[in-house]
Amino acid sequence: MRIVVPFSADRPKTRLGKVLTPDERREFAAAMLADVLAALGGVDRDLDVTVLATGPVEVEASVVVDDRPLTTAVNDRLDTAPTAVVMADLALATPDALEALLDSDADLAIAAGLGGGTNAFLARDPAFHVDYHGASYRDHLAIAREEGISVREVDSRRLAVDIDEPADLTEVLLHGDGAARDWLVDAGFELDVGGGRVEAVRE
Amino acid sequence: MRIVVPFSADRPKTRLGKVLTPDERREFAAAMLADVLAALGGVDRDLDVTVLATGPVEVEASVVVDDRPLTTAVNDRLDTAPTAVVMADLALATPDALEALLDSDADLAIAAGLGGGTNAFLARDPAFHVDYHGASYRDHLAIAREEGISVREVDSRRLAVDIDEPADLTEVLLHGDGAARDWLVDAGFELDVGGGRVEAVRE
Repeated sequence: MRIVVPFSADRPKTRLGKVLTPDERREFAAAMLADVLAALGGVDRDLDVTVLATGPVEVEASVVVDDRPLTTAVNDRLDTAPTAVVMADLALATPDALEALLDSDADLAIAAGLGGGTNAFLARDPAFHVDYHGASYRDHLAIAREEGISVREVDSRRLAVDIDEPADLTEVLLHGDGAARDWLVDAGFELDVGGGRVEAVRE
Repeated sequence: MRIVVPFSADRPKTRLGKVLTPDERREFAAAMLADVLAALGGVDRDLDVTVLATGPVEVEASVVVDDRPLTTAVNDRLDTAPTAVVMADLALATPDALEALLDSDADLAIAAGLGGGTNAFLARDPAFHVDYHGASYRDHLAIAREEGISVREVDSRRLAVDIDEPADLTEVLLHGDGAARDWLVDAGFELDVGGGRVEAVRE
């Protein structure tokens, strides 16, 4: 099965700019990508994984460089089915969570991200196409409806949590067990168990 | 199967104080409780549901009033197994998501909330007990380890999103389809699809 992992090689994770420098964001993004690739590597299936990067990146997978906007670059790869697209910042992804997506027989299996995004999908019908602008999850359900293709919504916290904003770092510290969590700990982040939700703070 | 739904009847949802008045918070909390009870009602199992409330509350379920702290009140009800505890603010809960929890054969099936909380669990072994202070999810895994009981971590976005803070309202508008979503729409909330994550704003 073909798997595409889009990755912003140039200026990744701008919304983490309040807590990480540009160099740190690049390192942390690379660590998350490594975690996603490791989770895919643990899936009990034959997967053909390609990192779809906006620029050159050194990683243990085949890389295709395509500097066009995300929607255009991904749509160009959906004419072969089945194809799955898994975002590179799903630092909590596990083989089990990915298998729940990849085992689906629906024309479209799709996992929502927090805040209305689409974090992962498997399209078994080439009629499906993406539009990542705005609340893409609802748009993708609408596209599937328009195309008359069957949908399975995959309910997974581990696929829902993409790491975009400082508050998301908490989830990596709480539930991650790979390179991204190690990177945060090395960079001085730790959990602050105060009132309400736990927070990630830097020493 | 016994199900306990803890509910703060007096001053619910204080962290929504920036966007809702006390009266509105009470109404919205009651709407979320109704949604949770409706989702439990849709589960294909015989459930004996009790709302464990800090004060009197009118709701279509049996109510037990217990004004002690949450941890104490819940622990008093865990000597009978199996017992499940499902939080009253899981406005996205569906019968399917709850069944994934309730169908587990593990001594403890547990669903994490965002920010380190424990949003739902099913204890089949009376040795399990709760401690809701701080990062309760990790503490609950540790308690299970100490007691030598088996654990299944239930990976569900719909059980992970508890509605505590203004940003969480977005998820209700995006994915809810019950009383809580209707209440927010009636109160003037709508989705703001700008850059980054979608946000809930009030007209």
